[in-house]
Amino acid sequence: MLKTNYEEMYHALTNFFAPSQLLTGDAISRDYGHDEMESVFHLPDVLVFPTSTDEVAQVMRLANQYDVPVIARGAGTGLVGGCVAIEGGILLDLSKMNHILELDEENAVLVTEAGVMLKDIADYAQQHGYLYAPDPGEKTATIGGNISTNAGGMRAVKYGVTRNSVQALTVVTAKGDIVELGGKVVKNSSGFDLKDLFIGSEGTLGIVTTATLKLLPLPKFSTSLLVPFNDFSDAIANVPRILNSGITPTALEFFEADSIKYWEQFTNKTFPENGFAAYLLLTLDGQQQESVESAYETLAELCLDNKAVDAFVLDNAELKKQVWSARDSFLEAIKNSTPKMDEVDVVVPRSAIAEFISFTHQYAKDNQIRIPGFGHAGDGNLHLYICKDNYSETDWQEKLAATFDALYQKATELKGKISGEHGIGFAKKHYLATSSSVAELELMRTVKSAIDPNNILNPQKVI
Amino acid sequence: MLKTNYEEMYHALTNFFAPSQLLTGDAISRDYGHDEMESVFHLPDVLVFPTSTDEVAQVMRLANQYDVPVIARGAGTGLVGGCVAIEGGILLDLSKMNHILELDEENAVLVTEAGVMLKDIADYAQQHGYLYAPDPGEKTATIGGNISTNAGGMRAVKYGVTRNSVQALTVVTAKGDIVELGGKVVKNSSGFDLKDLFIGSEGTLGIVTTATLKLLPLPKFSTSLLVPFNDFSDAIANVPRILNSGITPTALEFFEADSIKYWEQFTNKTFPENGFAAYLLLTLDGQQQESVESAYETLAELCLDNKAVDAFVLDNAELKKQVWSARDSFLEAIKNSTPKMDEVDVVVPRSAIAEFISFTHQYAKDNQIRIPGFGHAGDGNLHLYICKDNYSETDWQEKLAATFDALYQKATELKGKISGEHGIGFAKKHYLATSSSVAELELMRTVKSAIDPNNILNPQKVI
Repeated sequence: MLKTNYEEMYHALTNFFAPSQLLTGDAISRDYGHDEMESVFHLPDVLVFPTSTDEVAQVMRLANQYDVPVIARGAGTGLVGGCVAIEGGILLDLSKMNHILELDEENAVLVTEAGVMLKDIADYAQQHGYLYAPDPGEKTATIGGNISTNAGGMRAVKYGVTRNSVQALTVVTAKGDIVELGGKVVKNSSGFDLKDLFIGSEGTLGIVTTATLKLLPLPKFSTSLLVPFNDFSDAIANVPRILNSGITPTALEFFEADSIKYWEQFTNKTFPENGFAAYLLLTLDGQQQESVESAYETLAELCLDNKAVDAFVLDNAELKKQVWSARDSFLEAIKNSTPKMDEVDVVVPRSAIAEFISFTHQYAKDNQIRIPGFGHAGDGNLHLYICKDNYSETDWQEKLAATFDALYQKATELKGKISGEHGIGFAKKHYLATSSSVAELELMRTVKSAIDPNNILNPQKVI
Repeated sequence: MLKTNYEEMYHALTNFFAPSQLLTGDAISRDYGHDEMESVFHLPDVLVFPTSTDEVAQVMRLANQYDVPVIARGAGTGLVGGCVAIEGGILLDLSKMNHILELDEENAVLVTEAGVMLKDIADYAQQHGYLYAPDPGEKTATIGGNISTNAGGMRAVKYGVTRNSVQALTVVTAKGDIVELGGKVVKNSSGFDLKDLFIGSEGTLGIVTTATLKLLPLPKFSTSLLVPFNDFSDAIANVPRILNSGITPTALEFFEADSIKYWEQFTNKTFPENGFAAYLLLTLDGQQQESVESAYETLAELCLDNKAVDAFVLDNAELKKQVWSARDSFLEAIKNSTPKMDEVDVVVPRSAIAEFISFTHQYAKDNQIRIPGFGHAGDGNLHLYICKDNYSETDWQEKLAATFDALYQKATELKGKISGEHGIGFAKKHYLATSSSVAELELMRTVKSAIDPNNILNPQKVI
């Protein structure tokens, strides 16, 4: 049953959408009530599957007319409740807008609809000899979702985050206007940078329906280096050394023994180079074998001169795959080690990583709560998972809130930010004020109210 | 004499500023009435030299109270009238805020006040073993000016534009709030990307007072390659080939014989490798001599296989300096060849460069107007100079307007934009609508009205 005030709007929607594109009530699967983290649950009143920018614009025009919230959803792989219809309303499932529209080789860009999965974009680019540089861990996320949170990923050290690979967007505004921002041009000083304002705005300022993505020539050679240490701080101390060496690794990941332990328990496999306290995992890529080899030799030597216990070159494809598939499964493995968990995605200046990790260890010990984690060391972006384990729901909620407070407080003290790449969504909204000033939040609210005056775009998110 | 309504405000300013920081009337040099291009002239009523963010905030609070326009000015090297006080009001000369505040080597960032000159930042970074990557032609511009227009420059092909090197900003808002945006973190998904909204907003949304700039390890080796062609379209056809080769040049510039001719007339020197129709000028940099050598050999071969007449490796420091100092003086040389000129800074997709240049040549011929130019071929960003020569002022104004119309129309037809790096300012305001849609302009106006509701920040600029 639809709420009374939704009935007229729903009727209007039926003029534009086939029955298969338009669901209500029990026809909407409960999967649409949450994201991957399941920290919040609410079903939409109406679920729409648009297949074009024009259809999205049509939905927005009606939503604006009837003052109904609209929430964009890609694959639902978010971790902060960003795609959950907290107040009900219309959920726009963009997964049918899953077409790659154009490969323009002369301008080295790929034009794609928002609902295409990251892995399909990566594969398509690779098959045509190109690299789509951003590489967030969740490959089944949609590119629209990646854009909405400005997703980062493994290769951000060398190639930047999603923002740095988006040259143009088609955005549908709150009142249903279609706006093209940016273009196939690689630079632009023609008025305000609205493109970057929409990137990372988590569906609260407009609905991204297509994107023009920058492609790079596919690196011909790529090798990874696994560098173990007897102490986490020795590992982290090498991060600025590596980044100031003149060789920029594609990836520079950090993890500790406990992540490996959970992964081994989860998969019943044995991690290739086991038994050390902490690890750096690097990838080097390039067009020439010699330069990639010389790069990893230089960095291996640098680490060995600075307390690394060893430096394993993962030049065997099988070994490389094993190590990286372990790294890719840490989140799942930790999730599997506890009945419930929630996450912290802070980013701190690289100089402060060790202090933040050290604080987390001590906090976990002092407060008897398990907080395993790993991170994009090259970016200062850490993923920590606060585990419920055997605590009662009440105790857990209390411990979780206290831990969030403590960790965000510490990150802010270290001049860090609440989210490095997962976004704020619903779950982290109350913590945004920890690392953003009153004046900054006021500016954000000013922009939100101006662009979405009726607050129908993903209400109760971000700010 | 101050306008009556300014007197009270001026009196309030005297409470905060020393007489040497506060000028009015005839004490204000006429230099403050225009920028480098001198396409528009207007003096401010009050000229203030703030020395701190707090002083800027104080000015904004009073300006807001008395509803007086405030225009930020760096070195006045802009080309579109962005720093001219079109309606009078307060001109904020930020050139006394010229201190580098911090070099943080562990995070590889430089914190600087807005009034520091680009060349001082570049030199300081270099002396400490770092590269500040953006390299706009005008080295005496301030970093605040570079940020306000999102300046590009020679090295944008490899390292991006100013935006890509700015990690944090201190901004003073219209009502005098001080906002810190971004930080020493290298990624951030914590709320709206206000930092990028302020970058490139040409002082119309806030006053940038400090910036945290990303540094890179200084490349140890750098070589340039001068590649002549008998036809401009053969030169341009090599641009996508080079960029898809897997080797990214630091710079990829294009110029034609006429630029060399004006430079020779201007300097009375002879260009080293004279007598060809068109040239590509590339720089390759890196940490290892062999990889730089192998890179330029590969690219030289690629060009020679594709109609290049020759490929001169500028490995002799003197020769390299000669060629680059010529390239750096083309603008001055063209300016010297005509009593008056105005400029076009379009950016087009790289696939459309040749068509745009060809159109310009034909237009110049058909309309008997001289339009010499050169460009950042790697970015599709072309600088064209419309020369008055012997035309009367009336004829020139007519021809200039018609040429602007034709060139911006063509750029838009080719999916380009009005400005690649110089900004819109006052001079290009009426042309912004050519390449930006009604919906995009409306969004820009919405943002402007929300953030600066009384329109006191650089009024009559951009939109």
